[in-house]
Amino acid sequence: MQPKTSQEQRHQQRKDEIIAAARRRFRASGFHAASMSQIALEAQLSVGQIYRYFASKDAIIEEMIRRIIDYRIAEMENKTETSHLPEALAWRHSLSPDDDALMLEMAAEATRNPQVQAMMIEADARMFENACNYMQSRHPHLSAERIRCCVELLAALMEGTTLRRLTPQKCDPTQLQLLYQEITTMLFADK
Amino acid sequence: MQPKTSQEQRHQQRKDEIIAAARRRFRASGFHAASMSQIALEAQLSVGQIYRYFASKDAIIEEMIRRIIDYRIAEMENKTETSHLPEALAWRHSLSPDDDALMLEMAAEATRNPQVQAMMIEADARMFENACNYMQSRHPHLSAERIRCCVELLAALMEGTTLRRLTPQKCDPTQLQLLYQEITTMLFADK
Repeated sequence: MQPKTSQEQRHQQRKDEIIAAARRRFRASGFHAASMSQIALEAQLSVGQIYRYFASKDAIIEEMIRRIIDYRIAEMENKTETSHLPEALAWRHSLSPDDDALMLEMAAEATRNPQVQAMMIEADARMFENACNYMQSRHPHLSAERIRCCVELLAALMEGTTLRRLTPQKCDPTQLQLLYQEITTMLFADK
Repeated sequence: MQPKTSQEQRHQQRKDEIIAAARRRFRASGFHAASMSQIALEAQLSVGQIYRYFASKDAIIEEMIRRIIDYRIAEMENKTETSHLPEALAWRHSLSPDDDALMLEMAAEATRNPQVQAMMIEADARMFENACNYMQSRHPHLSAERIRCCVELLAALMEGTTLRRLTPQKCDPTQLQLLYQEITTMLFADK
């Protein structure tokens, strides 16, 4: 790979700044209410400058979601085993509460905006296939269909836990962790 | 109980109309972007008339959430057994996709608005306690703490499934239902 020219580096840095500004605006008022001019103001750029990097607000949302999913996939692949899952679920650990909030915002917006729904469908498909490959490599004795069901179940649990995190924990996490341990043991047992 | 006077009936009917109009506005543009004047326009009332029934947009959101939770609790209590859960989860059945979308909107808004977060905390506590009482009455052999863990797990699965419903199903629901069946059998087994 050629080293990046300083112009390419500046371009990349400017895009990063716009994404960071957009994240702050989306967190403050949601995708729907945040305007390109608010994002420009937040990034200390003109609206015209923003459009040189992103054709629309949807393009910013798309890039932001792509980065969140890339990060999640990288984090998943950094884990060498699935044994951390019961603890992470029971104690409601989060990679990034800010990313979680933006993904919830995406879900809410997806229910009324077909473009955002399409982004969500693509992001979920990418995450799901990566998780299946990861799980299959770690549990080669399970059938591909069993792996898909396990990934679907774990996805539901992880996404549900993201929602549950918004309200106080109402049971003993130590006990809950044992319950999740029973479930993951059952899921990945030799059959 | 005294029969309602026609004035009380009119008052109730008007409130119902405002809630219905607010639901349509919230679905179209989210809690944050929807204004009292848009809700008034949707309900074909003046803003002044809306304020006779609700002191603020937050008061409308609160009443709307109260009704959704009342409906969910009533539906849960109508079920005579928990054996429908594996099927409902695997096939992603929904009581009301519109209510689901509004509850997602509430979750997204709760991450930036402490008033909406307080409503969510209260709604979740009410739903959780009702679910615990319901589960305990059906599974009297389980300890109160075990019941709380089971309800937490099922809440995570149900809320996660609400999110999963926004993207296509990626595994065989018949197989997934069997997996959920294994889990519920394990949860409610005699110990």
